[in-house]
Amino acid sequence: MTRFNLNADMAEGFGDWQMGNDDGLLGIINTANIACGFHAGDYNIMGDVMTKAAASDVSVGAHPGFYDLHGFGRRKLHLSEAEIERLIAYQLGATIAIGQLSGIAVTHIKPHGAINNMACADRALADAIVRGTSAVDQNIILLAPVLSELYAAGEAAGLPVAGEVFADRAYMPDGQLVPRSRPDAMIHDKAESLAQCVRMFCEHTIVAVDGTALSVKADSVCVHGDGPQAVEIAGFIKAGLEAEGLQPAALPDMLG
Amino acid sequence: MTRFNLNADMAEGFGDWQMGNDDGLLGIINTANIACGFHAGDYNIMGDVMTKAAASDVSVGAHPGFYDLHGFGRRKLHLSEAEIERLIAYQLGATIAIGQLSGIAVTHIKPHGAINNMACADRALADAIVRGTSAVDQNIILLAPVLSELYAAGEAAGLPVAGEVFADRAYMPDGQLVPRSRPDAMIHDKAESLAQCVRMFCEHTIVAVDGTALSVKADSVCVHGDGPQAVEIAGFIKAGLEAEGLQPAALPDMLG
Amino acid sequence: MTRFNLNADMAEGFGDWQMGNDDGLLGIINTANIACGFHAGDYNIMGDVMTKAAASDVSVGAHPGFYDLHGFGRRKLHLSEAEIERLIAYQLGATIAIGQLSGIAVTHIKPHGAINNMACADRALADAIVRGTSAVDQNIILLAPVLSELYAAGEAAGLPVAGEVFADRAYMPDGQLVPRSRPDAMIHDKAESLAQCVRMFCEHTIVAVDGTALSVKADSVCVHGDGPQAVEIAGFIKAGLEAEGLQPAALPDMLG
Amino acid sequence: MTRFNLNADMAEGFGDWQMGNDDGLLGIINTANIACGFHAGDYNIMGDVMTKAAASDVSVGAHPGFYDLHGFGRRKLHLSEAEIERLIAYQLGATIAIGQLSGIAVTHIKPHGAINNMACADRALADAIVRGTSAVDQNIILLAPVLSELYAAGEAAGLPVAGEVFADRAYMPDGQLVPRSRPDAMIHDKAESLAQCVRMFCEHTIVAVDGTALSVKADSVCVHGDGPQAVEIAGFIKAGLEAEGLQPAALPDMLG
Repeated sequence: MTRFNLNADMAEGFGDWQMGNDDGLLGIINTANIACGFHAGDYNIMGDVMTKAAASDVSVGAHPGFYDLHGFGRRKLHLSEAEIERLIAYQLGATIAIGQLSGIAVTHIKPHGAINNMACADRALADAIVRGTSAVDQNIILLAPVLSELYAAGEAAGLPVAGEVFADRAYMPDGQLVPRSRPDAMIHDKAESLAQCVRMFCEHTIVAVDGTALSVKADSVCVHGDGPQAVEIAGFIKAGLEAEGLQPAALPDMLG
Repeated sequence: MTRFNLNADMAEGFGDWQMGNDDGLLGIINTANIACGFHAGDYNIMGDVMTKAAASDVSVGAHPGFYDLHGFGRRKLHLSEAEIERLIAYQLGATIAIGQLSGIAVTHIKPHGAINNMACADRALADAIVRGTSAVDQNIILLAPVLSELYAAGEAAGLPVAGEVFADRAYMPDGQLVPRSRPDAMIHDKAESLAQCVRMFCEHTIVAVDGTALSVKADSVCVHGDGPQAVEIAGFIKAGLEAEGLQPAALPDMLG
Repeated sequence: MTRFNLNADMAEGFGDWQMGNDDGLLGIINTANIACGFHAGDYNIMGDVMTKAAASDVSVGAHPGFYDLHGFGRRKLHLSEAEIERLIAYQLGATIAIGQLSGIAVTHIKPHGAINNMACADRALADAIVRGTSAVDQNIILLAPVLSELYAAGEAAGLPVAGEVFADRAYMPDGQLVPRSRPDAMIHDKAESLAQCVRMFCEHTIVAVDGTALSVKADSVCVHGDGPQAVEIAGFIKAGLEAEGLQPAALPDMLG
Repeated sequence: MTRFNLNADMAEGFGDWQMGNDDGLLGIINTANIACGFHAGDYNIMGDVMTKAAASDVSVGAHPGFYDLHGFGRRKLHLSEAEIERLIAYQLGATIAIGQLSGIAVTHIKPHGAINNMACADRALADAIVRGTSAVDQNIILLAPVLSELYAAGEAAGLPVAGEVFADRAYMPDGQLVPRSRPDAMIHDKAESLAQCVRMFCEHTIVAVDGTALSVKADSVCVHGDGPQAVEIAGFIKAGLEAEGLQPAALPDMLG
């Protein structure tokens, strides 16, 4: 039976500030990426969300970003490879520990924002992320965009790697996302998003904007946690995939 | 053969700022308490100091503090017990991970500054620190001041506990430190500090300011890392203890 | 003709995080307290809200807090008087400058959260806040709770002082707020809140929980900016006061 | 009589961390650039150094940087022009206010680190800095490297502009500094540094690495505040200039 996995970024509040709808998404998604305190997320909200994830059969991963609360980890920083290794290890270790306290094992890692985007195109940066991860846990799953340098780096190092795809983003013929500056970057039609997900999971294929069919190993679809319709759209995708006969699974079960 | 252990707070810089003389102390002490990024210390300096500690046969521990860079963790904050557990677990997990990356195992934990002082007198707070620690690693050594509530909390929970004493602080008859506001709080004479250390390690005794002899299980003496004479004084204590025939040991070996 | 003034805390987002409904309140209130970057608010949102306030005929003031993003300025810190003076002056000066850039003059100051609460009961702290304010601008209005030490400190130093009252809080016979721990702390009934406001502005009187009538100089009512009904309640109070024949005024006009 | 001005970056500590030797330099230099809390400097050390500067007849200016304590303002960030204006105005206003509290007027502004370097080559960024400055005070002196876009932007906007030169840096024929990556970037010989300063102030000339003579309006030489020999070198330059008959002057007097 074909399985599917929906992941979302979570615990992106900080102190009194909230971001997105963690509670709403926990009833829909299968896997949560937990912000680790550097771009968002503090030890309190990490513990709250991970405790709820444990009760919701949602698998969790570390979602490390640049040390930049003010920029939400979306601003590019150019750090040395040694610094990247430490940045990743620190946040992964902290998240594992909060998971231990909250009764849930951290099973994957997915970098956030600028560091993730940069690593998709920069193999040296991707390798440093992988080294920071492997030093802490060689069995942790790297959740990386399909056809990216980050995905390749994880595979080369022997980490288990899960391929991430996007429900609402259009793809270029080379497998990269259509840049947001282009008018056709986003898929606004829910039915079209769902169709893309079905193709990804069932046919292992993405149809790029020019019609090119790309062969991908899609293990997880990223759904967004913020925006007024985030929960509704996530629920629509989930219901649609289930209506197609696919079965929800936590991330480790996708690779099992 | 009687053993001794000297510990010091380290990695207390942040970004471009330095604090104390980490390199100088690494050649003298046996155990380093690594600031974990909340009151001082960032992932870079943590990695630098832990890498050097591994090469110097110095054992390392996490030195977690309040989330307060501006106050260096020395300002009291009143947090819930759940928040304390998470505060401790987060920093301990991060430090373990940087240790994994740096080739050294984290073998102890010693809270920093205000949270340490508060926990020495507040059993509920001490218990929360112990729970945050145990959730991450039940075999980690809690380095706590002798005769403190923190020490008692660790023992009650079954954590390995090491008793910390101070070379240059005078003690009250109840085992508490003489408050810094009193003129007799500090032992300024190096020979007297050394004599106190010898008594602690060899006779398991502290002589309080009124002459009372306190029986203590002293496993480690804290030496200070800042101040112009920090390294010189640490070296004097070390040489003096060795001249008395004591043998230096890392913290785990003190409990072994 | 009797005038009224409604004030609300604003610009309490930070980076990507939002707090409350600044846009909704700007159409209702007369005076905005601008978070200054220490407990919330950054230079971007400060500029955005002050630009809109200028276009909405809303007067603005600095709303300085402790340097504590993680605790939103609600955690007590015990600082020296010299540090308080600098904390206040820094944030007031920064807010004045963003106002200059945004085309609006800063006409008042109202401390935030823990520092405000502490200063209401601690005259030495209140005096330090007043000194930090006066050093920057001797004509700035201090918006302080009626019958508080902060109010008294401002008056004694010759600052213009505006009396703040609360629409939805019950008062003790000595003029202090009923502690939130008591079941009768909050006035949940909108009509009762409005009646309290009318009494304050028209009769210069607060009726305490035991029936005692307190004579107060009420210049501004604080309405809350967060919570799902914040904007609706603020609008209800405004409409009710206008229905009673009162006329809205910016804070400087209340003292004119 | 020919005058000279030495400026140095100051108040670059934060909380318990120190940087450089503020006290040592205050007896030598004529003008201090005060870190404003974003890359370094907090309200306490700003007040401490400005109080001492007032007592030392040293003129002071704001030294604003990116909001980046961890990177000490040396990491490039790409912000919108509106954000730059607010970043500058906020820090300038805060510094003016701390100056008011400390009994000294802020008479200049000099951006720090990455934002300064970027603005020297990016006219749009430089213009935004100038707009943020002018909005707060149209009479403040912009201290900008000679022959830079920042200098040109200040002049074009009608701000008073002071030309900054470096004692220990070599220049390219186009007036830019020799990049630090080149072996001839630094002038290590004290006598040569002094000779360059004398030429700058007396002959209004810089001799570039290829021998080209550049005509410059040099108003102030930057001396460094950190490094083991910072104070000694600053003192050597000062004594050397005085021995040549030049007279020290605060920055406003250089333009008067």
